[in-house]
Amino acid sequence: MKIALAQLNYHIGNFEQNVAKIISSINKAKGKGADLVVFSELAICGYPPRDFLEFASFIAECKKGISKIASECTGIAAIVGAPTENPGALGKNLFNSAYFVAEGRVQKVVHKSLLPTYDVFDEYRYFEPGKEREIVEYKGHKIAITICEDIWDIGTDPMYTICPMDELAKDNPDFMVNLSASPFDYNHAAERRKVLKYNADKYGIPCFYVNHIGAQTELIFDGGSLVANSNGEIADELAYFHEDFKVYNLPELVGSQKQYTQPPASKMSLINDALVLGIKDYFKKLGFKRAIIGLSGGIDSAVTVALAVQALGKKNVRVLLMPSQFSSDHSVDDSVKLCENTGIQYDKIAIEDIYHSFDKELKPIFGDLPFNIAEENLQARIRGVLLMAVSNKFGNILLNTSNKSEAAVGYGTLYGDMNGGISVIGDVYKTEVYELAEYINRNEEIIPRNIITKPPSAELRSNQKDSDSLPDYKDLDEILYHYIEKREGPKEIIAMGYDEQLVLRILRLVNINEYKRYQTPPMLRVSPKAFGMGRRMPIVGKYLS
Amino acid sequence: MKIALAQLNYHIGNFEQNVAKIISSINKAKGKGADLVVFSELAICGYPPRDFLEFASFIAECKKGISKIASECTGIAAIVGAPTENPGALGKNLFNSAYFVAEGRVQKVVHKSLLPTYDVFDEYRYFEPGKEREIVEYKGHKIAITICEDIWDIGTDPMYTICPMDELAKDNPDFMVNLSASPFDYNHAAERRKVLKYNADKYGIPCFYVNHIGAQTELIFDGGSLVANSNGEIADELAYFHEDFKVYNLPELVGSQKQYTQPPASKMSLINDALVLGIKDYFKKLGFKRAIIGLSGGIDSAVTVALAVQALGKKNVRVLLMPSQFSSDHSVDDSVKLCENTGIQYDKIAIEDIYHSFDKELKPIFGDLPFNIAEENLQARIRGVLLMAVSNKFGNILLNTSNKSEAAVGYGTLYGDMNGGISVIGDVYKTEVYELAEYINRNEEIIPRNIITKPPSAELRSNQKDSDSLPDYKDLDEILYHYIEKREGPKEIIAMGYDEQLVLRILRLVNINEYKRYQTPPMLRVSPKAFGMGRRMPIVGKYLS
Repeated sequence: MKIALAQLNYHIGNFEQNVAKIISSINKAKGKGADLVVFSELAICGYPPRDFLEFASFIAECKKGISKIASECTGIAAIVGAPTENPGALGKNLFNSAYFVAEGRVQKVVHKSLLPTYDVFDEYRYFEPGKEREIVEYKGHKIAITICEDIWDIGTDPMYTICPMDELAKDNPDFMVNLSASPFDYNHAAERRKVLKYNADKYGIPCFYVNHIGAQTELIFDGGSLVANSNGEIADELAYFHEDFKVYNLPELVGSQKQYTQPPASKMSLINDALVLGIKDYFKKLGFKRAIIGLSGGIDSAVTVALAVQALGKKNVRVLLMPSQFSSDHSVDDSVKLCENTGIQYDKIAIEDIYHSFDKELKPIFGDLPFNIAEENLQARIRGVLLMAVSNKFGNILLNTSNKSEAAVGYGTLYGDMNGGISVIGDVYKTEVYELAEYINRNEEIIPRNIITKPPSAELRSNQKDSDSLPDYKDLDEILYHYIEKREGPKEIIAMGYDEQLVLRILRLVNINEYKRYQTPPMLRVSPKAFGMGRRMPIVGKYLS
Repeated sequence: MKIALAQLNYHIGNFEQNVAKIISSINKAKGKGADLVVFSELAICGYPPRDFLEFASFIAECKKGISKIASECTGIAAIVGAPTENPGALGKNLFNSAYFVAEGRVQKVVHKSLLPTYDVFDEYRYFEPGKEREIVEYKGHKIAITICEDIWDIGTDPMYTICPMDELAKDNPDFMVNLSASPFDYNHAAERRKVLKYNADKYGIPCFYVNHIGAQTELIFDGGSLVANSNGEIADELAYFHEDFKVYNLPELVGSQKQYTQPPASKMSLINDALVLGIKDYFKKLGFKRAIIGLSGGIDSAVTVALAVQALGKKNVRVLLMPSQFSSDHSVDDSVKLCENTGIQYDKIAIEDIYHSFDKELKPIFGDLPFNIAEENLQARIRGVLLMAVSNKFGNILLNTSNKSEAAVGYGTLYGDMNGGISVIGDVYKTEVYELAEYINRNEEIIPRNIITKPPSAELRSNQKDSDSLPDYKDLDEILYHYIEKREGPKEIIAMGYDEQLVLRILRLVNINEYKRYQTPPMLRVSPKAFGMGRRMPIVGKYLS
C-alpha cells in the first residue's frame, strides 16, 4: 500500500481554493500510484475557522466541498478533515471529523475525541467529543485514524480521561494516520517528533502525521509533517514553512531500521522563517501587496524591515524616518544605511513642526504644566498618524515593530508605536531580537552593526535610554519568561534568586498593562505562550497589580 | 430553616476585598438568624478569572480565602464558589466548585458538571466537569447544590449529554441552591426567570439562585438573584445593578401560592443602568476617577456623556470640542448646550492648524493626489491624539463613543475615533442609541433635541452624511441583528425580503472589518452577542468577504 501525504496551505473560509487544492493533490497522488492520500485537520475550511463554525451556511459549504471531493475521488482513497453535524439530540452541534472518501463517495466519518481547549485552542466551544472509536478497513489494511490532540497524551499529566489510540489498538490496526493542525512555536517540532515516536513505539505500527502549513493571522502553521516507522523511529519529515507532498510505501516502514537523521533547525532560523511566512500569508490572504514601517534607528524596526523585505520583496516595503528634536544623528544615519543595504524606498518627515502645532493648541489647557509622558506619547502618536496617512493614501499596510518585552511591561504608546495591521516581533523578547538580528546578518551586514551595538532608546526626551525606565533586558526577559511562558508566580520566581522588588515590579507592570495589549494588533506567534488569543486576562483584574 | 442570599460585587483577583465582603455577609446573616447563607459562583476570586486560573499562586490564594472564611463560619453554614484542584491523575487540573462550609471548616465540596464554553464563556479551558453528583445534608434538610449552567438545560437543544439535577433529584432534596455568574444582556433576566421556574416546577421544590452583580471590564453582572417556590413560581427577586441581601424562611416557599409580580424593567432602562454600572466599575476597579470624551455634536458622543455623568458625576467628566473646517455651526452649539445641561467642563480646540501642519509635511509624499480617506482619517486621528494628550496630562480616561452599527461595518477610524479605555455604546446599534437618548431625556432635556433630530454625519468632508456611505440605519441594523445576534447567513436573510446586494454588501463589510474590531477597546456587553470576547472571528478569513 502506497500512502501520500499532502501538506497544504489552506485559507480559512476560502472553500473554492481549499477544495481545488485538495482535488489537485488527489490527482497528483493518483498519478504517482498512491492508494491513499491524507490531508490535514479541518482542511476543507482551514484552521482555526473559529466562530464561522456557528453559521449554518458555513457548515453547508463544508458539506458541499466534501461532496465535490468525494465525486473526484475514484481509483484512490482520501482522508480529509472537515466539520460534521452532530445528528444526536444531545451535546454540541458539531464534530471535528476525518472523512474517509473512496470510490466517489464518503465511506466513513471518524470524529475527534480529545478537543484541545487551552492556549490558542477553543475546540470544545464548537465540537462534541467523539464517543465511538472505530478502525477503517481499506484494501485489506486496518487504519487507525485520529485527529491531532487524540494522540498527544504521552503519559505526563493527561488532560483527558480517555486515550483513543488505546481503544483503536485493540482491533490491531496496520498503521495510524493523524490529521493535524498544530501551530508553530520554536519548541513544537521537537515535541511533535516525540509524540510520533511515542505512539509508533507504543503501538508498534507506522504512523503518518499530516500538518497544516501557512499562517492564519497570528497562528503560523509550519508543516513538518512526519512519518514514523513501526520501531518508533522518525522515518521522514516533510518541508517546514512550505507546501509539500510525498508518497510512502507502507511495507518499507514495517520493521525498518532506517532513521531520518536531519538535525532540527536552529531556534533563530525557525523564528526567522516563521515570521517571514506570517507576514507573507497575512498579506496574501488579505489581498495586500505592500507594507510600510516606521524606522526609528533602533533594533526592533530594523529587524522588522529585514523580515518584511524577505517576505514581500524590497519593492513592496517602504519606510518613514521621522526624527524629532530628541533624535540623535545616528538614528537617521543608521536608518538610511539599512534602507541602502536592503534597497527599499524611504522618506523623511521631521515631526518638530507638527509637534509644535499640537503644543500651541494644547497650551490653553496644559498651561505651565511640565513636559511629561503626555508630550512623550504625543511624539509617538504623531508618528503613528503620519504612518497611517501614508498607509491610507497608498494602500501600504503598516507593520507594527513592538517586541515582546515592551508589550509585556507596557513600554510603548497606544495609538502611536503600537499601531499596525500585524505585529511582527510582538512574540520575540528584546534579547531574542538581538539574536535574530545576528541571524539575519549571518551572511552579510543587512542590519547596520551600530543598530545592534548602541544602547536602546525611545528618544522621546533628551538623553533618554530604555535603561532609565526598565531593568536590564536580560533580567527583564528572564523574569518575563518565567511569568508568561512558564506561568510561575512571584514566590517561585523570587526563589530562583531574582530580586524581590524587581520581580514584583515587573509582574505588576505586566498585569496593569493588560488594557494596552487588548488594543494591539495580532502578534505573530512563535513562542509556546504569546500575548493575544492564547493568553486571556481580565483587564480590571487586581492580582499582583 | 432560614436561608440568606448574598448578592455581592466582587473584584477579580482582589482576594482581600472579596473575602472581607463574604465574611461580613456571613456575620450579617448570622445576625438575622439565618441557618445558611449562599454566595455566587467563584465568589472568592471573582468571575471570570480567566487565565489567572493557570497560576498555582492564584489557586493558593483561593484556598487561603476559603480557609479564612471557614474559620469565621460558626453557628451558620455558607455555600461559597471557588476553584478546587483536581486530585485525580486524569483530566483538567481544576474544578469549578461550591464549598459547603460550617462549624469552622469545609464540610463538602461539590463540582460544576456542565461547563459553558461558548460566547463569552471559556470554562472547559480550565475546568474538568464534575463526574459525581451528591446531595448535601444539613440540619435535617437535603440540599441539591448546582452551579449556574448545571440547571440551564430546559429541554431545547441540550448542549450536554447529562442533566445533573435529574441525578440529584433521585435523593429527594428539600430545596435547590444554584450559585451563578450570569452576565447581563437585555433578554437575560427573562430567561433566568424561565429557567428557575422550569426547575422549581420540574422538581417540585424551592430554588435559590444567587448571581453576581458588578462589571468586570466588558461583562456586566446585573444581579437579579431569584427565589422560586415549590410550585414553580418566582417568589422573590433581588436588586438589579446593586448589591443586595435577603433572608428567606424555607417553609414559606413550600406549597406557597404567593407570586412575585414586579414587571421586568424596560429594555432601555436595563441598558442605561447596565452601561452606567459598566462605566462605574471599570473606573472603580482600575482605580480611576475621571473621564474625558470627545464631543462631536452627534448622538453617540452625547449619549456617552450622559451615561458617564450618571456613572461618575458631572465633576469627573470633561470633554473636548474639536471642530474642523468641515464642522457645521450646530456641532459646536449643540455640544455646548449638552455641556450646559449636564454641567460638565468643556474645552474647544480647532484642529485646522494642526491639520495644515500635517498636510504641509505630507505634501512632498502625497504630491497632488486628491483629498480622500487618508485626509478624512487624518482629522479623526488628530482628534484622537488631542484627547489622549489631555488624558495623559490629567489622568482622565478616554471613553470611546462608537456604536455597534459603526463597529460592525467599520465606519470609524482606527487610532482616531475608535480610541478609548472602554467602549460605552459599542454593543448598542445606532437605532437603539436614539431610543436610549429618548430614555435619558424621559424626565427633562439632557441631550439637546437637535442632536436627536439632525441627520447623522462624520463631518470629515464637505456636506458629508452617514447616508452617503451607509444604508438607512433601520435596514442596516436589522440586517446586522440577523447576522450577528441570530447568526443567520446571507440565504436566510435575503429570504426575509431584504435586497440581495444590500445584504451581501453589509455582510462583507462586517467580515472585512474584523481587523479594525480586533484593536478596539473592550465594549460593554448588553446584547446576547457582542463584539469582543464572545465573538471570535479569523481576521484573514475569506468567507462572505
